[in-house]
Amino acid sequence: MKYVKDLVCISCGEKYEASPTQYLCPKCGEKGILDVEYDYEKIKKDWNKQDLKANPDPSIWRYSPLLPIDPNTPKPPLRVGGTPLYKSNVAKLLGVETLYIKDDGLNPTGSLKDRASAIAVVKAQEAGMNIVACASTGNAASSLAGNIASMGNEMKAVIFVPSRAPIGKVTQLLVFGALVLSVKGSYEETFYLSQEAIDKWGWYNRNAAINPYLVEGKKTSSIEIAEQLNWQMVDWLVYSVGDGCTIAGAWKGMYDLKQIGFIDKLPRLLGVQSEGCAPITQAFKNGTDLVPVAENTIADSIAVGKPRNYIKAIKAVKDSNGDMINVTDDEILNMIKILGKNTGIFGEPAGVAGVAGIKKATENGIIKPTESVAVVVTGNGLKDIKNAEKAVGAPLTLQPDLKELSQLLKDYNF
Amino acid sequence: MKYVKDLVCISCGEKYEASPTQYLCPKCGEKGILDVEYDYEKIKKDWNKQDLKANPDPSIWRYSPLLPIDPNTPKPPLRVGGTPLYKSNVAKLLGVETLYIKDDGLNPTGSLKDRASAIAVVKAQEAGMNIVACASTGNAASSLAGNIASMGNEMKAVIFVPSRAPIGKVTQLLVFGALVLSVKGSYEETFYLSQEAIDKWGWYNRNAAINPYLVEGKKTSSIEIAEQLNWQMVDWLVYSVGDGCTIAGAWKGMYDLKQIGFIDKLPRLLGVQSEGCAPITQAFKNGTDLVPVAENTIADSIAVGKPRNYIKAIKAVKDSNGDMINVTDDEILNMIKILGKNTGIFGEPAGVAGVAGIKKATENGIIKPTESVAVVVTGNGLKDIKNAEKAVGAPLTLQPDLKELSQLLKDYNF
Repeated sequence: MKYVKDLVCISCGEKYEASPTQYLCPKCGEKGILDVEYDYEKIKKDWNKQDLKANPDPSIWRYSPLLPIDPNTPKPPLRVGGTPLYKSNVAKLLGVETLYIKDDGLNPTGSLKDRASAIAVVKAQEAGMNIVACASTGNAASSLAGNIASMGNEMKAVIFVPSRAPIGKVTQLLVFGALVLSVKGSYEETFYLSQEAIDKWGWYNRNAAINPYLVEGKKTSSIEIAEQLNWQMVDWLVYSVGDGCTIAGAWKGMYDLKQIGFIDKLPRLLGVQSEGCAPITQAFKNGTDLVPVAENTIADSIAVGKPRNYIKAIKAVKDSNGDMINVTDDEILNMIKILGKNTGIFGEPAGVAGVAGIKKATENGIIKPTESVAVVVTGNGLKDIKNAEKAVGAPLTLQPDLKELSQLLKDYNF
Repeated sequence: MKYVKDLVCISCGEKYEASPTQYLCPKCGEKGILDVEYDYEKIKKDWNKQDLKANPDPSIWRYSPLLPIDPNTPKPPLRVGGTPLYKSNVAKLLGVETLYIKDDGLNPTGSLKDRASAIAVVKAQEAGMNIVACASTGNAASSLAGNIASMGNEMKAVIFVPSRAPIGKVTQLLVFGALVLSVKGSYEETFYLSQEAIDKWGWYNRNAAINPYLVEGKKTSSIEIAEQLNWQMVDWLVYSVGDGCTIAGAWKGMYDLKQIGFIDKLPRLLGVQSEGCAPITQAFKNGTDLVPVAENTIADSIAVGKPRNYIKAIKAVKDSNGDMINVTDDEILNMIKILGKNTGIFGEPAGVAGVAGIKKATENGIIKPTESVAVVVTGNGLKDIKNAEKAVGAPLTLQPDLKELSQLLKDYNF
């Protein structure tokens, strides 16, 4: 916590000491989302690009001066971060000249959320707690369970999932030894139950919107992009949006780098929601407060009818002079195929929603063909095989017989 | 191909020019598996540990001097290799003091086989072919499909899978745009059909046992371990064994490093098969030729009743003064849980079979408690959720109600 000054409420501006369990501004309640403030001058004195270049650790901990942790707290051993960034040949297909795709599905438990959960494991220890809980549609859950598991038997994860969560995600967190509670209700109801339980039993709270430290983990995804691009940022940075924390974190990463002089240019943010659940886009476009909506989309990881970090998300998009856009489930399924077939990257529906948003944004004139774009595929497609099946169908079936194969290839015009 | 001298038949010793399509020794037929020979003296002159350390590329291509490729051939863009090696806290649980686990499930398509498929994509181009085919229980297939996809529309993968392959693996390769042929038959029949088709239509052959170059890709898994251990090799190197290529490759990597002076000590190999399909262990133990067996195991990625690279595999284990051992399906399922719960690593059944083998080998006195061990988890657990479900069961289910939760936690002794 060497470089952390305080926590500031994004609604009223009140400042608080950065204790591990200071989750919200008590004055503003649910809207009192806190933001970590750093002493950038001090960081600039102690840390520069050369120090970073000389650091062989590829994980998120290489950015420790910009993380709200005590350097001495034990870190979960999983290698979180350091995911590849590809200059992609689908740029033209999506309507731009230059496109970079970061495959965050290659994080240890298969999603970007490992970046937040790793921080949660550290902060829980700093709070003296060994049980960490969250409500999640899946990835926050499995990343927490996996990172907790990597600590051995020292800590325990309690996970609340809505019963609609895909079996792959639930199985993964059972494998990681978490106590899994499948709640017969919406994400909303699941979330409130987790809050009640956390209050009642005094567990550490890994609900990303409520916990100001987790966004700080998520910001490493955009910081990594900047480093991988040798600090020359693209014109647009694109993320899918559910609860709002990831895109808010991405902006925080850019802001931090600008403050310490690692980058000159800030990108514009494009936030992409699913048409079947787009309350943040709606609030952004209408300039109104958030109106909760139903959760009707296959992209379960961003299906959040009442997102909790919409204020930070909308502020981030506005501050960046960015935009919000929605994509349909069909566009998402189609993008799973386009991306898989042309790049060898297999994303889950929410994971590729951002990429689908680029296509739509170039068609709508939001992103110009000459502008450069970076996008993060936020979760691994292996997490949601059922929806991928919808996208691609079944294989050709045949007997082990060369004649049958010849006929099949002929029919297939191969 | 700057450092490749020739191909040598491991059965008769005949040497051949290293052309991209020299698959087998024509004199020895199926037993005429070829091995790539390098000019180690030349490599030693041109390349040292410092060169390697200075190379920022974390992928398998950092070991190019030890790979049978023309450095100028375009490489598939996916970042293959550079997977994490963890010093593991499950060492004691498995009966040893020091254990390192490499998570190769974090390769781009989720398995170690990316290492071989990346080489196949390069060699096909060197042969002037743009269609690459293989028969596979899944991972060789998806890794080929993914690496081919990353080349854009320049190449095409044709994949023969036995119809028992898990849906997750099949869906993944359909996502990657491969032509997938699901064969109603055993792996054996599937393999022969692929061979006939490859001969008939002149496709490039990615069947690992038949193609001497692919083992050279697989060897990067053990070379990486050596580099990650700062060239101080462990006493035992453990791999699960199906067709025999992976463990043969691992040994080749060790042999190469010894020849060029990067390591002093060679590890002993422990090969682990599934009790329900263990023809290589049988041949190794009995000192007989291989007798094909049925394929009765949940570990589909190593369920190979008639393995094709058993000669190279058995030679590797013998040359290393190593051993072979079998584990049951129950031991494999149990190890999915142990590994997940204690390390946050989620492996598929074949992926954790090697780890289960360590436990058995320490119990049997093959591996001593004071000896150090490294093992590779060869595939991601998300690829085979159905078997993981068998290992872990279902989550606790409840209404969104705090009272019900209190009762549940009490019943659960939490």
